[in-house]
Amino acid sequence: VLKLYYAPRTCALASHIALEKSGGEYVAERVDFNSNGQRTPEYLRLNPKGRVPALATGRGVLTENPAILLYIAQSFPKSKLAPLDDPFALAQAQAFNSYMCSTVHIASAHRGRGYRWADDEQAIASMKRKVKQNMIDCFTLVENEMLRGPWVMGDAFSICDPYLFTMSGFLEGHGIDVNLFPKVAAQMSAMQADPAVQRVLTVQLS
Amino acid sequence: VLKLYYAPRTCALASHIALEKSGGEYVAERVDFNSNGQRTPEYLRLNPKGRVPALATGRGVLTENPAILLYIAQSFPKSKLAPLDDPFALAQAQAFNSYMCSTVHIASAHRGRGYRWADDEQAIASMKRKVKQNMIDCFTLVENEMLRGPWVMGDAFSICDPYLFTMSGFLEGHGIDVNLFPKVAAQMSAMQADPAVQRVLTVQLS
Repeated sequence: VLKLYYAPRTCALASHIALEKSGGEYVAERVDFNSNGQRTPEYLRLNPKGRVPALATGRGVLTENPAILLYIAQSFPKSKLAPLDDPFALAQAQAFNSYMCSTVHIASAHRGRGYRWADDEQAIASMKRKVKQNMIDCFTLVENEMLRGPWVMGDAFSICDPYLFTMSGFLEGHGIDVNLFPKVAAQMSAMQADPAVQRVLTVQLS
Repeated sequence: VLKLYYAPRTCALASHIALEKSGGEYVAERVDFNSNGQRTPEYLRLNPKGRVPALATGRGVLTENPAILLYIAQSFPKSKLAPLDDPFALAQAQAFNSYMCSTVHIASAHRGRGYRWADDEQAIASMKRKVKQNMIDCFTLVENEMLRGPWVMGDAFSICDPYLFTMSGFLEGHGIDVNLFPKVAAQMSAMQADPAVQRVLTVQLS
């Protein structure tokens, strides 16, 4: 059975919601970031990156949201979480998720994890000051150029939606009102109204 | 016909090599970064991100290497550039490419494009100082945990190989000898010996 390693308030929420929406069997195991659980020898054997999400499968461990999300969609095709029969539409979905991980999440991470990219406190403080504007720039692009509405890919819910919802959830912590972006805000509300999303949030935040 | 927008010495090399290896018909159009060609109104209409690569198709424009690479593999299945019939193996390939874009390329970009994440010169200089160690850490993980050899995914060349080759090509600019990583160095040599790779480099560097 699939086992998702997650920590609350991290990007692992995207893969967790997709698993819940897939209808597939899985278990979710919390990694305790407060005690640096992602750096224990046991966890590093599982995922040498020392990050979440990680998805343990019968054939090995997968990492990286864009890969895990595609794997969930392909493993549970009846849930129609991705346009698997249309390479162009699938590439659009992958491009969206790639933007989430390599631009939006990275922009956000410069607030709390600046130590990854600089050692001195002044530089880390300087990075923090730019995060809000960078996130606004990212979400302006999402609002104007990417999100079709009501879901990211249009009428059909897809693996892009849990990932956008996860990134939108970071906005408040950056002091940004999601209502600056009406389509993003509507997608966020629709996600919050989804019982599957509510079940995952209950588990993660309990 | 597919049209790839690229600039020399950028990550667009990955998609360019994959197209050349695919056997498919395409044209490559250079975007002149020296004159800020990626910021012209014409280019921004095509790709509002103002980046390369971008792949114009009959149905629209695709961006982001991990998405374009998968699209190339799916569009030209005879070239066997990805394990399309094996969702787990495909997810492993996508996880590798996701790591290239969201961790390795980002680590590298803090040397020349630190202005994306901070405004003041001292912070940008501080980021630059950390890039070499971050790149060494990334390639240590690639060498020890990811690259199976001789190709990234093992015996079969895949869409992961042009992407790794592109990132390995950044090492010298960071003052890092690729021979610190024997498997990465061997993959790089094998890529350099490939006539398809040579054709692409001739076009890009002419």
